[in-house]
Formats: sequence, C-alpha cells, structure tokens
Amino acid sequence: MNLLVIGSLGLDTVETPFGVAEKVIGGTAIYCSVSASHFTQVNLVGVVGEDFPAADINYLRSRGVDLEGLEIKPGKSFSWGGRYGFDLNSRDTLFTELNVFETFNPRIPEKYRDTPFVFLGNIGPELQLSVLDQIHKPQLVALDTMNYWIERTPQELARVLKRVDVLLVNDSEMRQLSGEHNLIKGARRVREMGPQIIIVKKGEHGAIMITPESFFYAPAYPLENVFDPTGAGDTFAGGFMGYLAHCGAIDENILRQAMIYGSTFASFVVEDFSIDRLRRLHEDEVRHRFINFHEMTRFVRPWEE
Amino acid sequence: MNLLVIGSLGLDTVETPFGVAEKVIGGTAIYCSVSASHFTQVNLVGVVGEDFPAADINYLRSRGVDLEGLEIKPGKSFSWGGRYGFDLNSRDTLFTELNVFETFNPRIPEKYRDTPFVFLGNIGPELQLSVLDQIHKPQLVALDTMNYWIERTPQELARVLKRVDVLLVNDSEMRQLSGEHNLIKGARRVREMGPQIIIVKKGEHGAIMITPESFFYAPAYPLENVFDPTGAGDTFAGGFMGYLAHCGAIDENILRQAMIYGSTFASFVVEDFSIDRLRRLHEDEVRHRFINFHEMTRFVRPWEE
Repeated sequence: MNLLVIGSLGLDTVETPFGVAEKVIGGTAIYCSVSASHFTQVNLVGVVGEDFPAADINYLRSRGVDLEGLEIKPGKSFSWGGRYGFDLNSRDTLFTELNVFETFNPRIPEKYRDTPFVFLGNIGPELQLSVLDQIHKPQLVALDTMNYWIERTPQELARVLKRVDVLLVNDSEMRQLSGEHNLIKGARRVREMGPQIIIVKKGEHGAIMITPESFFYAPAYPLENVFDPTGAGDTFAGGFMGYLAHCGAIDENILRQAMIYGSTFASFVVEDFSIDRLRRLHEDEVRHRFINFHEMTRFVRPWEE
Repeated sequence: MNLLVIGSLGLDTVETPFGVAEKVIGGTAIYCSVSASHFTQVNLVGVVGEDFPAADINYLRSRGVDLEGLEIKPGKSFSWGGRYGFDLNSRDTLFTELNVFETFNPRIPEKYRDTPFVFLGNIGPELQLSVLDQIHKPQLVALDTMNYWIERTPQELARVLKRVDVLLVNDSEMRQLSGEHNLIKGARRVREMGPQIIIVKKGEHGAIMITPESFFYAPAYPLENVFDPTGAGDTFAGGFMGYLAHCGAIDENILRQAMIYGSTFASFVVEDFSIDRLRRLHEDEVRHRFINFHEMTRFVRPWEE
C-alpha cells in the first residue's frame, strides 16, 4: 500500500568533526521518503524553492516517489545550518531560514486522498490537522513532533494527537509531552491522548516501542564510524512506515520488523552526509544488517536448550 | 563450579526521592554474592567491622556463601552515604568512611585457592593483583574498576588487566580506559590490554557485551518504579558471574544468558533499598522476568515467516 509523507525539504549546511557539507538536500520528507521508497510507493507533500536541485528531484522520481504534492515556489528553499561537537552528541544550530516554508499550506492532491498510510513529519500541528482533514479515513497515521510544538501549541497538538495511531518522539520530547520522567508511565499518559503505539527514539541507545500489550527494544547498530547524525530519526520513520505500508496489515511481528528496518536505514544514513549513503545502498546490505540486528539481540532460554 | 568474590562490604545510608535508608548493608561483595548465590556457591573475601549486623552475616550464610574469607576486625565497617536526584540519574556522595577497609589486605583462605571463577570487585588494582597471586590458575577472571584507578594507578591496572578475561565497566569508564569515544573502537584497544570479553554497563540503557567475534545487546528492564539504583552494577556482575560458574564451560550462548540473568537480578535489586528485594525474591519471579527479556527483544526475520 502507499505511504503519504509530509514534512520539510530543504538545503542543509552541516559541519561535523569529519568535514563540511554545504547546501546538501535534507529535511524530514527527503530522509523519510527515500528510506520508505525501499518498501513502498511514496506520495510526497512539501514545498521547495527554485534553488532546489533538479537532479535531486529527479532522484526522488527515480525512487518511485510521486511528486504531484511537491510545490516548487518562487524564492529559496528552507535552509538549515548546524555544527556537531567532537563526539556528535551535541549540535548547535547555526541558522534556520524558513524561506518558502514560511507560508507552506499543504494541499493534498486528489489522487493522494485515499493513501492508507500517512506520516505527518514534524511541522506545526495545525498543518498536520489540515492534512488529516484533506484525506479519507487512512488506515494508519503516524506523527512526529518536537518540544517547540509541545510548549507553544499544546491545544492544537492535543487535537491532532486524538487522530493519530503512532507517535514517534525522542526521549526528552516524550518526557515533556507526558509530564512523566518514567517512560512506561509516560506511555500510559500519551495513550490517553490518542496514539496507541508509542516509539521513543534514543539515538545511540536505540529505540523502544510501547503498545498497550507489549514492549519492544531495538538497539542502535554499533557503528565504528558515525559520520553525520543528521536525518537519523526521519530515516528511521521512513523505514518503519515504509515497511508497514508494504505489509498492509499490522500485527506485533510486523511492527517489530518495522522497528528493525527503521533502525537499519537510520544506521546507514549516518555513515555519510545527507542521503549520500542511501543513494548507494544495495538491498543485500539492508538484508545483511537486518540479520546482524537479529544476531546481536538473540539469546536462548536456558531451559529450552 | 564455585565463584570467588572479592569486594567491599559496608553500611550505606541512602536518600532517594522515595525515602531514606540508614546503615543498611551494601558494597560490591554483598550485592554480587547474594545474586550469584542463586546459581552457585560463593567464596567471599572481604572485611567488616564489629558494627556489621550479625543477622546479615547469617543471611549470607543461609544463601550458601562461604565466609571463611570474611575478616571481622575491631572498629567500624566501611560506610558510604549518598543522595539521588529526583530522576535517580544523578547521585551525590555525602560521605565515605573507609574505616576497617582502609588497611584491607586480602588473604585468600587455602580452601579458596582453586576456585575456578573469580570476580575482582572494584578495589585498588594492587589488591586485585594480590588476589590473583594467591590463587591457582582460575578458569575465568572478571574485573570491575572505576575512573579513580584508571587515573591514579594506570600501571598497576595495566598489570592486572593482562590477567583478566572479562572486564565490566560503565560507558564513561570504558571511554576513559580506552581513550576512544566510540565503544567498538574502544573495545579493540581494551582487548589489546588483556580482557577479551568486555561488558559495558549503561544503566537505564542496558548493557552491551563485545567479544572478538560478537556483539550482544541486553536492554534494561522497563521498570515503572525504580526505588534505589544503588548496587545495580554489582548485582549485575553477581548474576552474570554466578550463572557462568554454574554452567562451568563458557560459550556464546551461555555468555548471553549470563548477560540476561545479570540484567534480571539488577532489575530486581533497584526495586527496594539495599538487598531487600533480593531477600524476598522467588525463583519463579527470576524465570518470569528472564522470559520477559526474551519477549521484549525477539523478532522474526521477514523472509523466514
């Protein structure tokens, strides 16, 4: 089944201890749709300016991403600059220029309106609501958000959360949203707000999924060389949602596999700037890393040997 | 097979957001030998003062712990006081009184000298060396250490590490010892120092085991109520080493099971002050939580369904 992805697209300038990348493509919708494209056909909704490279638009098209929902507006694309500390755990934002994103008002093309799987990237909750208002009864809706919206627009966020099945946040966002330090208690609070499946992204410590019936732990892949962490969370979301859309029906096994695929794609994207590692990624590498995830978590119950 | 445990025993005063415990038993050798006693017979080496409660000595005996190596000296026991912050992630040490521990010079009883499994708790590396000098060709030696020794006695630590099979440290200790931020690269450095099996304890983020051939991730148990984190690492070590000693022969499967047993016992001990939760722990609870660890990490490779 298809996946609708809405989120930012832009040009990033990133400094890491290993080098600098200037004006490379980035943003939620880029990372998410490229990783999801390994599993399913993506319907993309977003906006770029006239400076966005045509070659990259062509690359998305080559991945089977439908671009009818991509507006190309006069002016410059959303632009972000950041610098990472020596251990990649700290990041300073050097600049954020909204540009054409400032007046973004998502319009969902007619042919996207029956897309059964929907990923609402981290944008204002009122825009996320507007997307849901334009589509017909999706089978599964996932949402990402951040501290900014939790603090500034809690009512709008509460309204959209009621219509969401899967929440993807990092641990500090989870604590802020739920008002609970403990993630298990926090998950119970968040389930009362709407989403029944809660995914907490913990960076180098992996990701956890909490549902009403289960708890699942996906470790982060033990990489020797992390090059640029930008986009890891959005790439995770793309692998996760892409796999769910591919499977169509959702059950516990499929959700867990989706968590591992999300972690797998996230582990690749951080090996190079922008989506460069994903551009040269082969399906056998994906399969190999998935197997490694299995290998590094498996153990046998002693009384069953 | 038997397990020799050497480490501190003392009286702790602990303040958490949930209450205060005054002069309760604690220390590496207490936590480690009580959890290990679920699997194997422990030979304990340590020192206490005359204020150490006889009832607690009796409790250790009731767990099958051999106490010929426990010196009872005139004076007061080692004493530590600490206070945890509201989220239990930060801890201030309020006082440390070495008392009888100050002149501790471990003497290994004759009947302990052929103990095949040895756990050298976090004490000065010269004392750890002295223990190894007094015992005959152990089958497997594990060592815990801390930043204090890594900084102050690096040469003595290097000498003892050469004779160690398993290193147990937390992530900041691992980074300091190896001089590498990346844990995979750090593990390679540490293997050159001696230990071939490296266990990095990451608290609420679980524990990882790195061997020359494998990487294994054990999550932390998702507890709703952590009451007092004191002793979690030593309890982990006890479950881990106790299980290895019980099995006798070591292979990858057994090491992984030992990691899960270590995590299981650690998850219980933090549910109450001191070893109180372990005192009332039933074997079926251990088994149940081990099964839960399996349940929260298992997933199926999609192409094998």
